[in-house]
Amino acid sequence: MTETQDTTTASPAGSPSRRALIGWGGAGLALGAVAAGGAVAATRAGDDADPAAAEAGGAVAFHGAHQAGIATPVQDRLHFAAFDVKTDDRAEFVRMLKDWTAAARRMTAGHAVGEGAYGGLAEAPPDDTGEALGLAPSRLTLTIGFGPSLFERFGLAGKRPAALVDLPRFAGDNLDRTRTGGDLCIQACADDPQVAVHAIRNLARIGFGKVAIRWSQLGFGKTSSTTPDAQTPRNLMGFKDGTRNIAGTETDRLKKFVWVGDGDGGKGESWMTGGSYLVARRIRMNIETWDRTSLQEQEDVFGRDKGEGAPVGRAKEHDKPFLKAMKPDAHVRLAHPDSNNGITILRRGYSFTDGTDGLGRLDAGLFFLAYQRDVRKGFIPLQRQLSAKDALNEYIQHVGSAVFAVPPGVRDKDDWWGRTLFSEEA
Amino acid sequence: MTETQDTTTASPAGSPSRRALIGWGGAGLALGAVAAGGAVAATRAGDDADPAAAEAGGAVAFHGAHQAGIATPVQDRLHFAAFDVKTDDRAEFVRMLKDWTAAARRMTAGHAVGEGAYGGLAEAPPDDTGEALGLAPSRLTLTIGFGPSLFERFGLAGKRPAALVDLPRFAGDNLDRTRTGGDLCIQACADDPQVAVHAIRNLARIGFGKVAIRWSQLGFGKTSSTTPDAQTPRNLMGFKDGTRNIAGTETDRLKKFVWVGDGDGGKGESWMTGGSYLVARRIRMNIETWDRTSLQEQEDVFGRDKGEGAPVGRAKEHDKPFLKAMKPDAHVRLAHPDSNNGITILRRGYSFTDGTDGLGRLDAGLFFLAYQRDVRKGFIPLQRQLSAKDALNEYIQHVGSAVFAVPPGVRDKDDWWGRTLFSEEA
Repeated sequence: MTETQDTTTASPAGSPSRRALIGWGGAGLALGAVAAGGAVAATRAGDDADPAAAEAGGAVAFHGAHQAGIATPVQDRLHFAAFDVKTDDRAEFVRMLKDWTAAARRMTAGHAVGEGAYGGLAEAPPDDTGEALGLAPSRLTLTIGFGPSLFERFGLAGKRPAALVDLPRFAGDNLDRTRTGGDLCIQACADDPQVAVHAIRNLARIGFGKVAIRWSQLGFGKTSSTTPDAQTPRNLMGFKDGTRNIAGTETDRLKKFVWVGDGDGGKGESWMTGGSYLVARRIRMNIETWDRTSLQEQEDVFGRDKGEGAPVGRAKEHDKPFLKAMKPDAHVRLAHPDSNNGITILRRGYSFTDGTDGLGRLDAGLFFLAYQRDVRKGFIPLQRQLSAKDALNEYIQHVGSAVFAVPPGVRDKDDWWGRTLFSEEA
Repeated sequence: MTETQDTTTASPAGSPSRRALIGWGGAGLALGAVAAGGAVAATRAGDDADPAAAEAGGAVAFHGAHQAGIATPVQDRLHFAAFDVKTDDRAEFVRMLKDWTAAARRMTAGHAVGEGAYGGLAEAPPDDTGEALGLAPSRLTLTIGFGPSLFERFGLAGKRPAALVDLPRFAGDNLDRTRTGGDLCIQACADDPQVAVHAIRNLARIGFGKVAIRWSQLGFGKTSSTTPDAQTPRNLMGFKDGTRNIAGTETDRLKKFVWVGDGDGGKGESWMTGGSYLVARRIRMNIETWDRTSLQEQEDVFGRDKGEGAPVGRAKEHDKPFLKAMKPDAHVRLAHPDSNNGITILRRGYSFTDGTDGLGRLDAGLFFLAYQRDVRKGFIPLQRQLSAKDALNEYIQHVGSAVFAVPPGVRDKDDWWGRTLFSEEA
C-alpha cells in the first residue's frame, strides 16, 4: 500500500459536484454510481503528495496505509466531535463502525451518505440529511480515534496500547469535564464548514442509540501548516506560532515522529501499526488581557516579532531561531525541539470563537490538535515544560483535554474503521 | 451620493494584501500609505453592483448612501455582536462611534486598525490585534444598528423611531435572556471568518469601558442569497428556503421594502432616512428529531421537494409556487408574500453550530437576519402568522431575539456612524 491517502487532486473543471453525483429522484441513480467510481479513481494521483494540487473543492482519497486528515495539507475548517458509547453490545458497535466507514467513504468522495438518499421510499427518513447537496467534496477528511475509556468496554482491556496513557494533570489546567475525554472521536476537516458539520451530524445520526456526542468543537483559521514553504497562519493572539511543523511530504519525519512503527508496542498492540496518537486541548485565550498588553511584552512572550514572525534577532519567519537571544520563559524557546531533547509533534490546530462568556469576554482561543507516535515522548514532556515555565501561561488556560489512539488507515472498500482492533485475526 | 457601497471589486491578481499594505516595522509606512490610497480607490467601481465581480478577497466600499452589508451580495461567514453601553457620557460615546468608524473604514479596506500598528511605540498595546495581517479584505462589511434600549440613554428618547418597536412575544418563543436584546449591534460579514472575528474583536477592544459585548454569534453557510439567479444555499434542515429573496441589484424592491424613505417617520425620525430595520433571531433546530422524520413529512413541512428545492407540484426551484397544492400549514405557503398581503423582507441568515448542549444534542440552527423598511409591516405580521400556524414549529425554537435601527451609510471620510442621530444639526 503506497501512501496515497494524503494526495489530493482538485476536481477537474466541470466535474460532477455532490449534486450531480447523488442521483436522487430515481432516474439519476445508475449514472450516479458510474460517476462515483470515476471520481474516486480520480483522487488517486500517485505516490507523491503535491500540495500545489490541494485546491479547495477536490476530494482526498479515503483509503490508505494511514488515515487521511493527519499528514493531509491542513484544510480551512474543523468540526471535531468526541462521543460516549451507549451500547454494551460489541457486535452492534462493530456494525456501527462498518456503517460509519461506508458513510465516510461516500462523504469524503463528495457523495450523500446513501446512494438512494433521495430516490428511496419517502416514508423512511432520508439516508442523508441533505445540507451538503450541491457542495463540492471540499477536501473533507474524516479521522477516527479511540479514547482510553473505550478499552474498558467490549473486552478490549488487553489491547489498550501502553502509549495511550491518561494525560497527567498539568500546572494551570482548568479542565471543564463537559469538554474533556470521550470514548471515541471523529475529526472532520474540510475547506467548507457546512461539509464538515454535515459529516459529523450524519455519523452521529447513524450512531444514534449506540453513541452520543459528548462534546464538539468548531474551528476556523487553521493555526498551523503541513504544507512546506507555506506562510504559517496567525493564531488569535496575532502571532505565527509553530512555524516549523512537519510537512505532509516529509515521509522520514512522519515515520520518525508521527506514525506508530511495527515493533512500537508490546503484546496486543500491533493493531496500531500505521496509526498515531492524538492529543486535543481546548486552550482559551484571555483575549481582553492580551489585547491591552504592550507590543514589546507580546513579542517577548512569544520570542518572535509580531509583524513578520521572525525569531528574536532574526529577519524572517523561517530563519533559524537563536534561542539564547530570547527571554528564558519565551514560548518559542521553551517549545523548540532543541530545548526538549528533539521532541517534535505534528500540529493541526484551529482557532475558535464560541461567542462570549457570562462576563462579556470572548470565549475564543486555540483548539490544539497534535499527532505523535507516542504521547509519552511527545505532548506530555513538552507540556510539562510549557505548563511550568511558559510566559504565555499568563494569557491562556487549558479548559478541555482528550487523548485518542488513531488506528491505521482503511485499506480498501472491504476494510473498516477499527478492524485491526476488533477483528480477532488482527 | 450614488449607491456604490454595494459594489465589489475583486483584488486584481498580485495586488497588495493586508500584509503588504500595513507598513509595520517602520520602513514600510510611507509605501503603505500610498498603496492604501490606491486600494480604496480601486474598490469604487461604478454605480451598478455587479454580483459577478463579487469574488472572495476583494474590498467592499465602506462609504455610501446606505450601509454596506445589507444589499451587498451575501458573504460566506458572519460574526454578529450585540453590545451593552457602559458609559453615561454622551461625548465619550460619540467619540467611540467616531473611532469605530475610522477603524471600520480601514478594516473593510483590508488594513490594520492603526496605520502605525506595528511601527508604533512598543510600550503601548498595538493598535491592531494582528490576527488578520496578511489576509485579504475578504469582502468584509461592518454594519451598525441601534437597539430600542439605546434611546433610553443620552437624551435620545425623542428620536426613537416609531418603527423601532419592541418585538411582541410570539407563540412558541423560548428566549434566552443572555442571547436577546442589546443597546447596539455590529454585523460583520466576510468571506474569511478570521477577518470577521478580527473586526468585532477590535471594535470591542476600542470600545472597552464604553461598551461590552452582551452576546455574539458566529455563522457559516449563508442560508439566503442576495445575488440574482444564484443557487439558494441549503439550511441545516437540508432545504433551500427563501428562494425569492430581494437581490442587491433590485433597486426598486430595495426602495419599496428595505430602505427607510424620506417621509417614513414622524418628527425627529429623519435621521433614519436611507437606513433600515434589522431583526435578528437565533432559531435553534431540533436536529435529531428532524433527522428521524420521513422525507415525505419533511417535504410536506416545507412545501418543497428536498433535492431540487422545487415547490410542490413544480419541477424547478425557481418555478412559481402553486400555494394551494401545499398543505395549509406548509412553511413556503405561509411565508409567501401572497399569503401575507405582499410582505417582503430581505434575508441574510446564516447557519450556526455551537457545539452540543448538556444532553448531547447539536446546538445548531439558523441565525435569522432580516432587513426591512418597517418592522411593523415586515417581520412582526409575518412571524405572527408563522408562529401560530407553521408546521415547521414542531422542529424549531426561537431562542434569541433582537431588533435594531440601522442608520444610513457613512457618506465620506469626514462622516461617522450615528452622525445623523447624535449630531444636533441633523
